[in-house]
Amino acid sequence: MFQTAELGQTVSREDFDRISDGLRTELLALQQELRKADFQVVVVFAGVDGAGKGESVNLINEWMDPRWIVTRAYGTPSDEERERPEAWRFWRDLPPRGQIGLFLSCWYSQPILQHVHGEISTAEFDRRLDRILAFEKMLADDGALILKFWMHLGRDAQKRRLKSLEKDPLQSWRVSKQDWKNWKLYERFTGSAERALRRTGTGQARWEIVEGEDVRFRSLTVLTTLRDTIRAHMVERKARLKVIAEARASANAQRTAELAVLHEARGAMEKAAEAEASKKGKGKRGKSASVNIADGGQIQGLTVLDTLDMSQKLDKAEYGLALKKARAELALLAHQARERGVSTLLVFEGSDAAGKGGAIRRLTAGLDARTYQVIPFAAPTDEERAQHYLWRFWRHVPRAGRLRVFDRSWYGRVLVERIEGFALSEEWLRAYAEINEFEEQLVQHGTVLVKFWIHITKDEQYRRFKERESIAYKAWKLTDEDWRNRAKWDEYNIAVNDMVERTSTREAPWVLVEGNDKSFARIKILQTVCEHLRRRLQ
Amino acid sequence: MFQTAELGQTVSREDFDRISDGLRTELLALQQELRKADFQVVVVFAGVDGAGKGESVNLINEWMDPRWIVTRAYGTPSDEERERPEAWRFWRDLPPRGQIGLFLSCWYSQPILQHVHGEISTAEFDRRLDRILAFEKMLADDGALILKFWMHLGRDAQKRRLKSLEKDPLQSWRVSKQDWKNWKLYERFTGSAERALRRTGTGQARWEIVEGEDVRFRSLTVLTTLRDTIRAHMVERKARLKVIAEARASANAQRTAELAVLHEARGAMEKAAEAEASKKGKGKRGKSASVNIADGGQIQGLTVLDTLDMSQKLDKAEYGLALKKARAELALLAHQARERGVSTLLVFEGSDAAGKGGAIRRLTAGLDARTYQVIPFAAPTDEERAQHYLWRFWRHVPRAGRLRVFDRSWYGRVLVERIEGFALSEEWLRAYAEINEFEEQLVQHGTVLVKFWIHITKDEQYRRFKERESIAYKAWKLTDEDWRNRAKWDEYNIAVNDMVERTSTREAPWVLVEGNDKSFARIKILQTVCEHLRRRLQ
Repeated sequence: MFQTAELGQTVSREDFDRISDGLRTELLALQQELRKADFQVVVVFAGVDGAGKGESVNLINEWMDPRWIVTRAYGTPSDEERERPEAWRFWRDLPPRGQIGLFLSCWYSQPILQHVHGEISTAEFDRRLDRILAFEKMLADDGALILKFWMHLGRDAQKRRLKSLEKDPLQSWRVSKQDWKNWKLYERFTGSAERALRRTGTGQARWEIVEGEDVRFRSLTVLTTLRDTIRAHMVERKARLKVIAEARASANAQRTAELAVLHEARGAMEKAAEAEASKKGKGKRGKSASVNIADGGQIQGLTVLDTLDMSQKLDKAEYGLALKKARAELALLAHQARERGVSTLLVFEGSDAAGKGGAIRRLTAGLDARTYQVIPFAAPTDEERAQHYLWRFWRHVPRAGRLRVFDRSWYGRVLVERIEGFALSEEWLRAYAEINEFEEQLVQHGTVLVKFWIHITKDEQYRRFKERESIAYKAWKLTDEDWRNRAKWDEYNIAVNDMVERTSTREAPWVLVEGNDKSFARIKILQTVCEHLRRRLQ
Repeated sequence: MFQTAELGQTVSREDFDRISDGLRTELLALQQELRKADFQVVVVFAGVDGAGKGESVNLINEWMDPRWIVTRAYGTPSDEERERPEAWRFWRDLPPRGQIGLFLSCWYSQPILQHVHGEISTAEFDRRLDRILAFEKMLADDGALILKFWMHLGRDAQKRRLKSLEKDPLQSWRVSKQDWKNWKLYERFTGSAERALRRTGTGQARWEIVEGEDVRFRSLTVLTTLRDTIRAHMVERKARLKVIAEARASANAQRTAELAVLHEARGAMEKAAEAEASKKGKGKRGKSASVNIADGGQIQGLTVLDTLDMSQKLDKAEYGLALKKARAELALLAHQARERGVSTLLVFEGSDAAGKGGAIRRLTAGLDARTYQVIPFAAPTDEERAQHYLWRFWRHVPRAGRLRVFDRSWYGRVLVERIEGFALSEEWLRAYAEINEFEEQLVQHGTVLVKFWIHITKDEQYRRFKERESIAYKAWKLTDEDWRNRAKWDEYNIAVNDMVERTSTREAPWVLVEGNDKSFARIKILQTVCEHLRRRLQ
């Protein structure tokens, strides 16, 4: 694999000088254009020590405008990094759209070195590489340009390089005993590297192997490759955006037409159902209203939500007793989790007025404020919008021993973004796999992850909306958007069904909570959290 | 001081219930209004253990919308926190404007406990309190509402509280031996607390002492105080904003009038000076052009920049030699600093085209990409705009052993913001003290802080602008804004003079760099950085 990078290729000073001025101008112009583009450039530098990784990074910073370049190199992780999944430190350093990120000793570094030193098996090595593959695919699918340079030196060339550094009194401190030890492992190193490169070189995130001995040759290779790849990606991306815009327009047109047809039919049903529900009174289940109606011409089957026994409830005495008991247990478990460094992430989703906020408050009321945080996710900030949609959630992954409650979450991608057409079907369809991958990393890191969908019937929602309208200190909670969302009730049920089907795993299960009776829902949630924590701490 | 909080005040259940509904509605309405306001609310909870700090925080979260409340409590700092000045962790958690931050065991916690346990002297205690005073003043001056609750329990009441917890099998784990040890130190604790409260209770950031034994009494006290204080601040702030708007309008009008008068006079002088400069050629110093002209009717004296010998230069051979030597030394020093955990912050400011970018690149070219980062500061993001102007710089304070280069910095406040009128005079005048306070924290933490102002003459700037226009790969660097800034040359000189005068301290000196000869400037910068690092590492 690396033979072509041991040919002794060189570039003369004259040739270099002849080319460099023009190349520099082109790179700068490209960078200016890139700043307006909707994607980021992620450049990985890996390879043999002394093959010019750091120097190439410095050169790019020298030739281009370093203000729009993010350079990151990774050493020993800090405790804040160690206390989260390995990828957290890389996610938090990703450049925003329009900028370039240069990454040194990054995600390839640990897996390759650990494999070389026999600290991980080849199976584990492959698993780590697959994880990288998924990470890069996720960014590339989102539009990012990913370019990976393997800077290469042959065994002899590396030896020459170390010797020459040692001879220079100003440079000799750069060479440590470890460097010579590594050099002796050269064959094993290139063996592991070859495996990594073969497994992770894809059409979306390709490897460029660069012969590193001649400074001018490697510099020109890196810089021209960078130029050509950015340029090509820019063209491709523009074409892609056109296709996306057309797809979006046609999807919207179809949607509008469908909605117009459905609107009348629904309006009538709605009124009839609600009239009946209000006749029936509060106690009974509004089964008739939750029957699925025809949507876009197709008859929908039952969803997983239809299987819930929505009549479950707790009376005041039962509730009071259970609440006291569960709260005390949770406080104790959270305390133990804090001591043992077990982190917990609780995700809350649910229909409007399902009682997320209330349930969260009952859950945290007994907890030490030192151990928990509630993070609400509403509209993203501009820093968040300039990144992959998962970035803002990675940002808030809890440290060891902490409990975090996410009020709404990454599932917005397959719920509201799907239904409102903010995400194209290929985007939200892809999201299930991206989400599973994300959650797997949390779980493998040891995080207790539980996801709650609080469900209420359509009747019950209507009742609560009306109640909110009439109680002064609840009125601010009800917006026009709530009524608009209600009109899409059935679409939401289908989306929830798909979500549960595709993202409920053994390690990160969905817990469907029957929410018509708030007391029942709150106790079920509290007890479920206790159960998961108890299991994890045993 | 605490006697009034040991009176055994209580509120009956009936009274509480009668008040609570209305209070809750008012708090929620206020919170909605606050979201549109231009300030944040910072609420500190400190006090005796068991007096209801955590419970009050939970209650606020329960009664108000927790999505717009940031709750933070502090335990042992992480290594990322320990490696930066103590205030870093608090700065990074501040709520954005429009939101409420609830802070538990925060900035008062360590100083008080350390004083109680005799780990710090009373003089050091006072110093720490003064630092807090400055921190709170800074936020308050920026418009923030700061409200501090001291939750109090008498010695006997605290004993009763611990005993009752111990008796409850579900709660007994909450009481540790440490709690009883602390109780024995009760008198010393209240002694230190009293000192802290007396010293840090100001009109801008007042303390409210709350008797904590009766849940209903303390809850009502906290919640009504919160309501009344936010309400009053809202009114005050609105009035203040009106005054600010008027001040700004009148300042702008005056500015426009002055500029119109000056414009013509300047235009003529400018032309004459530049014509002369281009006749004189490149080699000579354009002394005549750098003479200060009348500004707004006042004759300006010499600025510190006029004292620089702008003719200093290095020839190519000297430069090459010095560059090689200084770079090698810097690489070695940076390596040692990394090993020893010494962090470095280099601030670069200078006129347009003074050569900041080039100097930074020459400086970092020889460094290991693992140890340094260049952080450019252009327009703030919306997350940054929602905070105090220093927040975005705190955000990027380097960890131990790292070197960070700031391309522009907090000095924008007293340069561009002053000159363009983005900051009112009271704001930028206040900034000198705020900046000195910030830098003192960095320096006391052990950070090597050096600030460079790269200066060029007006002639030289003109030459460089023209050169940029004519060289393809430099053309992107020159914008209309550069020409606009140039018209304010003299104003900038005065601002720089004031800045150097007020913020050059022994620990964080300004280094004025004669930048007409790029080689000279680059070497001076490199050598200065080496010198400071060398001194620190000895």
